[in-house]
Amino acid sequence: MSQLLKVQNFFVSSDGFGAGEGQSLERPFGHADPVVLGGWAFATASWPNRTDGAGSRGLDDYLVRDFAHGIGAEIMGAHKFSPHRGPWTDHEWKGWWGDEPPFHTPVFVLTHHVRPSFALSDTTFHFVDADPATALAQARAAAEGKDVRLGGGATTIREFLDADLVDTLHVAVAPVEIGRGVRLWESPDELRDRYHCDVVPSPSGVTHHLFWRK
Amino acid sequence: MSQLLKVQNFFVSSDGFGAGEGQSLERPFGHADPVVLGGWAFATASWPNRTDGAGSRGLDDYLVRDFAHGIGAEIMGAHKFSPHRGPWTDHEWKGWWGDEPPFHTPVFVLTHHVRPSFALSDTTFHFVDADPATALAQARAAAEGKDVRLGGGATTIREFLDADLVDTLHVAVAPVEIGRGVRLWESPDELRDRYHCDVVPSPSGVTHHLFWRK
Repeated sequence: MSQLLKVQNFFVSSDGFGAGEGQSLERPFGHADPVVLGGWAFATASWPNRTDGAGSRGLDDYLVRDFAHGIGAEIMGAHKFSPHRGPWTDHEWKGWWGDEPPFHTPVFVLTHHVRPSFALSDTTFHFVDADPATALAQARAAAEGKDVRLGGGATTIREFLDADLVDTLHVAVAPVEIGRGVRLWESPDELRDRYHCDVVPSPSGVTHHLFWRK
Repeated sequence: MSQLLKVQNFFVSSDGFGAGEGQSLERPFGHADPVVLGGWAFATASWPNRTDGAGSRGLDDYLVRDFAHGIGAEIMGAHKFSPHRGPWTDHEWKGWWGDEPPFHTPVFVLTHHVRPSFALSDTTFHFVDADPATALAQARAAAEGKDVRLGGGATTIREFLDADLVDTLHVAVAPVEIGRGVRLWESPDELRDRYHCDVVPSPSGVTHHLFWRK
């Protein structure tokens, strides 16, 4: 079994945006409300931030709890890691996730402005200025035989799709338009020539799109 | 988080049977064809017996690959383990699964005819003559903090449901009637008073029923 590159639990709006316009420290998804895009996931028993033992255990929970299954490394774009643009002015910024990031593996942040690696709990962040294929080779080596997750954002996923490097994608389409922002696609049909796709409406209102290579 | 008791990937016919009539060495599901009940699972990339690297990676695959996720022990009925009835006459019988059973944990076989434990690869089979609550306590202790899977068959699942011990159930209903055999239910609606349920039709033709406690 080869090491797959997988998009897991990526949120988009019904008009195809992974985030809104105007990302900032206070608004990681820009003008879009993350609860509107990701509420289906936050309501599940397996959502990483949940500590109350409650939450749903139906379809949405299967998808959320698969997030880390068999994954040995993540690749993410710079804007998933940080709202900053340009050269780093603040090495104190260590991501949005506090002292216990939900990755628990090496994470490779794609950036034209590299900085030293650091660890937070069992997640180690590395900063690489590389094309998708080179970054993927690094992540695969770090994943020690396991699969690699492509964490987003939408621009990063598009770059890896353009390079034909993505093996599977789970994209959760929320029933809301946000009008503008960072676009993943005009339509999921754009991927139909290269991928099989199961389209699975959830009782929560979101529609899961599950793609795998033809 | 407590240790859940979970039914994972249990196959039933549209008329509610987990197996047909007349189980034998040659026909573990009796007169029913296992391919008709389980073909949706056998077609996935994650089916344990698959070695070709092929198979689907859509909805059905999510459910199949969750089979072992977070599971530390299994409980099964005697008829899942063996076609024999009554006292053991052949201790050479070690289950249907060959030298590499797909469980990889302790397995507790419920039987009125106990026999010595044995190991095959990383699966150890224990034989217990106990009521459901007692067997579950033993399995939980062996699972070392992980969840316990209730493997079936249908009669065993009914006994644990009657004792109100089951936390989640994934039952895959195949679009075929088999007419007679070992019944799980007259209708999935029987569980609606105690469980939430997502009913999720798969493109493969099977309908996944995902129950979790209210």
